Amino acid sequence: MKIRYLDHVATNPMLPEVLDAMLPYLKEQFGNPLSVYDLGSNAKNAIEKARGAVAALVNSKPSEIIFTSSGAEANNFALRGIALARQSEGNHILISKVEHHSVLNTARSLEKQGFVVTYMPVDKYGVVDPETVRKSITKDTILISVIHASSEVGTIEPIKEIAAIAREHNIVSHTDAVATVGNIEVDVKGLGVDLLSMAAHQFYGPMGAGALYLRGGQRIQPLIYGGIQENGRRAGTENVAAIVGMGKAADIAKAELSSRMKHVTRLRDRIIEGMSKIVKVHFTGHPQDRLPGHASFIVEYIEGEGMLLMLLAKGIYAASGSACTSKALKASPTLVSMGVPVNMAHGSIVFSLGMDNKDEDVDILLEEFPGIIKRLRDMSPFGKGWDAHGFDKASGEESLH
Amino acid sequence: MKIRYLDHVATNPMLPEVLDAMLPYLKEQFGNPLSVYDLGSNAKNAIEKARGAVAALVNSKPSEIIFTSSGAEANNFALRGIALARQSEGNHILISKVEHHSVLNTARSLEKQGFVVTYMPVDKYGVVDPETVRKSITKDTILISVIHASSEVGTIEPIKEIAAIAREHNIVSHTDAVATVGNIEVDVKGLGVDLLSMAAHQFYGPMGAGALYLRGGQRIQPLIYGGIQENGRRAGTENVAAIVGMGKAADIAKAELSSRMKHVTRLRDRIIEGMSKIVKVHFTGHPQDRLPGHASFIVEYIEGEGMLLMLLAKGIYAASGSACTSKALKASPTLVSMGVPVNMAHGSIVFSLGMDNKDEDVDILLEEFPGIIKRLRDMSPFGKGWDAHGFDKASGEESLH
Repeated sequence: MKIRYLDHVATNPMLPEVLDAMLPYLKEQFGNPLSVYDLGSNAKNAIEKARGAVAALVNSKPSEIIFTSSGAEANNFALRGIALARQSEGNHILISKVEHHSVLNTARSLEKQGFVVTYMPVDKYGVVDPETVRKSITKDTILISVIHASSEVGTIEPIKEIAAIAREHNIVSHTDAVATVGNIEVDVKGLGVDLLSMAAHQFYGPMGAGALYLRGGQRIQPLIYGGIQENGRRAGTENVAAIVGMGKAADIAKAELSSRMKHVTRLRDRIIEGMSKIVKVHFTGHPQDRLPGHASFIVEYIEGEGMLLMLLAKGIYAASGSACTSKALKASPTLVSMGVPVNMAHGSIVFSLGMDNKDEDVDILLEEFPGIIKRLRDMSPFGKGWDAHGFDKASGEESLH
Repeated sequence: MKIRYLDHVATNPMLPEVLDAMLPYLKEQFGNPLSVYDLGSNAKNAIEKARGAVAALVNSKPSEIIFTSSGAEANNFALRGIALARQSEGNHILISKVEHHSVLNTARSLEKQGFVVTYMPVDKYGVVDPETVRKSITKDTILISVIHASSEVGTIEPIKEIAAIAREHNIVSHTDAVATVGNIEVDVKGLGVDLLSMAAHQFYGPMGAGALYLRGGQRIQPLIYGGIQENGRRAGTENVAAIVGMGKAADIAKAELSSRMKHVTRLRDRIIEGMSKIVKVHFTGHPQDRLPGHASFIVEYIEGEGMLLMLLAKGIYAASGSACTSKALKASPTLVSMGVPVNMAHGSIVFSLGMDNKDEDVDILLEEFPGIIKRLRDMSPFGKGWDAHGFDKASGEESLH
């Protein structure tokens, strides 16, 4: 059966050109970049070329890019590194309630070390109001970290406004841009942030390569201490091939960005339009300010897992909640923070599109999905509605649209 | 010119079988291991298979292996993770003076967070005396970390004895086994350590994959917080291909270990024998308890960099000091801690052998090296000896053999 992969927020197939660029560094160009001979300097030069490509993609200087092993590492590095570097100036950190777990759980770990974290609320679209940020700032605030776009509901946050408020107050700002870099235009100077996290496999690059943009002059403490790699800011022998792959993927993303956005936006809008015709299926996230390839919904009365399995039987690959919580069987904190009742949050379904998708994929999805929902609802104890089981649905109705 | 790569402590060429094992996960098997569908479970299963192979290589249970992005990350994770998990029991950490920078600098960062670190001395062979460990223990000691073998001088430390002392005192023990795993027999049960770090590229696996052995039941705090990967102990989308490559490399290392050791030991002994004939070239490290493929020396009156460049002109790739300090132009702390005077430590040269080396490589090295040294000494201001320049060489004489 033909695979219809609609889960590009989980990961993306790597482009063949990316693998081609990596292969020499998995074969004859195997040197350690710190070695003084040609095998070492070839590897080092390849890393610096990749750094330039990643910098160009986000409009930074090459020296402002620090390679990491993942977006999660970049997020940990950003939060912990700034917290430790700035702890003499204050102990208060602002994040939102819709952060990725790598930001959320790093913030929680910092609480155990004496930092105070405010988890800012979002509106029903999942948006952090910049005025909420302004009001949450105290004299002890040293860092504000808000996600650029949620991979669960697709909403793009007003980072430019938030970063401007941070700068007004001389506070460091970070954004987790793992879901956006390579998928929409991301310009660190335009956004005005001090730090920004990204991951190569989110834009057709390899797993095992991420990066942190760190504005020139910003102090940071390493997350991984050791040798002099990455100017002493991130130790460990570099994953040369993965970094080279990230650079190649960045080059291609920069060149193809507008055509990519156009392609996935059109398919996304077809999904959203088709789903809007199904009873008790609620679109989630912001209707305009959202990832171009991202269509997310709550399907009432049924659970995500059942939908995923029945979609799979038709060759359709999708997600429920976030990739990192999908196996944890917990209701998504993002959806709950948007006012979705816990019982309904379990009915989350996310379709995310990529360059490998065609109209036919959407045709099949829209053809199969109503029948799948009907069968699941027929089986569900809630198939006749929540009310019969005593759930108070009022707050849910209010939050969905 | 034919390359004679004698720098296997820096990194190793990847085996073709390892790349073959990785390729499907760089192509069609691109799924996120957390996804519920086959692309996800295939990736997850591949990771678990690799975990079994790595566990078998070091004689642990698969559940005791946590994948990381490098040996440096594993070292940071071990030290910081145990320190944070055990801080209610004490704040004292014991390491040696011959640790890799990823242990040394992590320990220094923990000092800034209120931990007290004792840097234990070594003898002239670079060996940590277990009795020194015993005497350094205080009622606050929570962790002892001693390197399994130094990549700079090749000396293998008495980890079994040190781990036994740690256990007697109910103290957690860690060893950085990056230089040993896959190169000599490493048995975590036999050694009796609680944690052990390793890196795939040190045994013909890929860069970007390391692992930490964590004895079952040991508590640890994550270094990278986030999703539920690695049972919540190491977050971030897994580098599936690199992990698969590490597993394959572990399989091959286990099967070939004794033939590998035999091959490189023979070549190493030829180098040591040949070098012993050159005036004022001192063998460093332990003569018996050393890495099988490791031959390290101090060449008096000249600097490592000059030797490296002139060797390179003959196609011979070697190292001076450690890979991670080779570009930092500092005298190796390992050599200095062994009693080598700073001026002489700059004359460090390390030849490390691998399966790709042949007798011919050693022939050429032994043929070319005396001439190289002669030319460099003729150019050196110290060519007539240190004494003419007022250096006190007494402590150096004492430490070399």
